[in-house]
Amino acid sequence: MARKSGSHADITGPKVREAALKLFARDGYAAVSMRKIAAEVGVQAGALYLYTPDKQTLLFDLMKSHMEELLSAWAEADRGGTPPERLEAFARFHIAYHLDRPDNIFIAYMELRNLEPDNFAEIEALRRRYEQGLVEILEAGNDSGDFDVPDPKLAAMAAISMLNGVTTWFRDEGPLSREMVETIYWDMLRKSVAA
Amino acid sequence: MARKSGSHADITGPKVREAALKLFARDGYAAVSMRKIAAEVGVQAGALYLYTPDKQTLLFDLMKSHMEELLSAWAEADRGGTPPERLEAFARFHIAYHLDRPDNIFIAYMELRNLEPDNFAEIEALRRRYEQGLVEILEAGNDSGDFDVPDPKLAAMAAISMLNGVTTWFRDEGPLSREMVETIYWDMLRKSVAA
Repeated sequence: MARKSGSHADITGPKVREAALKLFARDGYAAVSMRKIAAEVGVQAGALYLYTPDKQTLLFDLMKSHMEELLSAWAEADRGGTPPERLEAFARFHIAYHLDRPDNIFIAYMELRNLEPDNFAEIEALRRRYEQGLVEILEAGNDSGDFDVPDPKLAAMAAISMLNGVTTWFRDEGPLSREMVETIYWDMLRKSVAA
Repeated sequence: MARKSGSHADITGPKVREAALKLFARDGYAAVSMRKIAAEVGVQAGALYLYTPDKQTLLFDLMKSHMEELLSAWAEADRGGTPPERLEAFARFHIAYHLDRPDNIFIAYMELRNLEPDNFAEIEALRRRYEQGLVEILEAGNDSGDFDVPDPKLAAMAAISMLNGVTTWFRDEGPLSREMVETIYWDMLRKSVAA
């Protein structure tokens, strides 16, 4: 079915999402009302309900589309190869992707507690699917003899925590380039799982 | 000077801090009013002002005492020894200490954004002092030839991020004991900095 370009939802949708992401990251979900989001977008609160039924749905949609976009971006970036090659690709991809989306990663951790149970279960399943991609690389490396990782699931969580940490301190105007930071983190990760 | 035991501040202080910690961690600083904290403690909002001048001071005091207690607990736990021995002590200490204080670590990261500039600078200085303790262990290990860490400051941040991650998923009722988790993380950290 052809999509009506320029329709109300087409125009408002991205603005609503952008405003909600910004306000949730700045003030926290509990402190942000639909009214505040509407004010940030520059519409009446009523107009917001044409786009989303409630604030919970907005939070859930933001987190869900973040995870889905992350999964498809990694599927695109994963070029196969040996387990160490794939692990390097994962480390560089994960850092680069999240450095461009600090608000998304902040919300992905901070606002899990504010998801209703069904929504939480769905986001958690997507998060595990992403993590599982890394688990499989570690398992393949155990099998090939490149890695020695006694608990691949736990190691995957530890690795992702370490890589996520970059977003809390990295600034493009700082002394280190993204490339240098990626390389240093990749080097630590490589050694941490080495046989 | 003898302290009046059972005075108002003696009794209310810890309850206020406990209530504020719980509510900030659950709802976020911006969504928690002094009135809500008072209700959680079971006093009138006016009584809260006998204990603290405002919500910002309460947040700052919580974060400051968390960092000061962390620094003195690590000073106590650090028994010296070779760089690898001290690094192992640090890894096990950091995990054990934070697993007992998930709300504190959550707030320490999440609410930095809500500190006023002077307060932020003071908390940031304490955080850096803690991080610097790890930097010095890594530098000592570079000197002794035990470690090969090209950028000790960056490696310290990466290591702390990795260790912090435990608090997001570990549950005492889960299949892994604290001891096993500490050992697996320590093993990854050990390898990640090894010469």
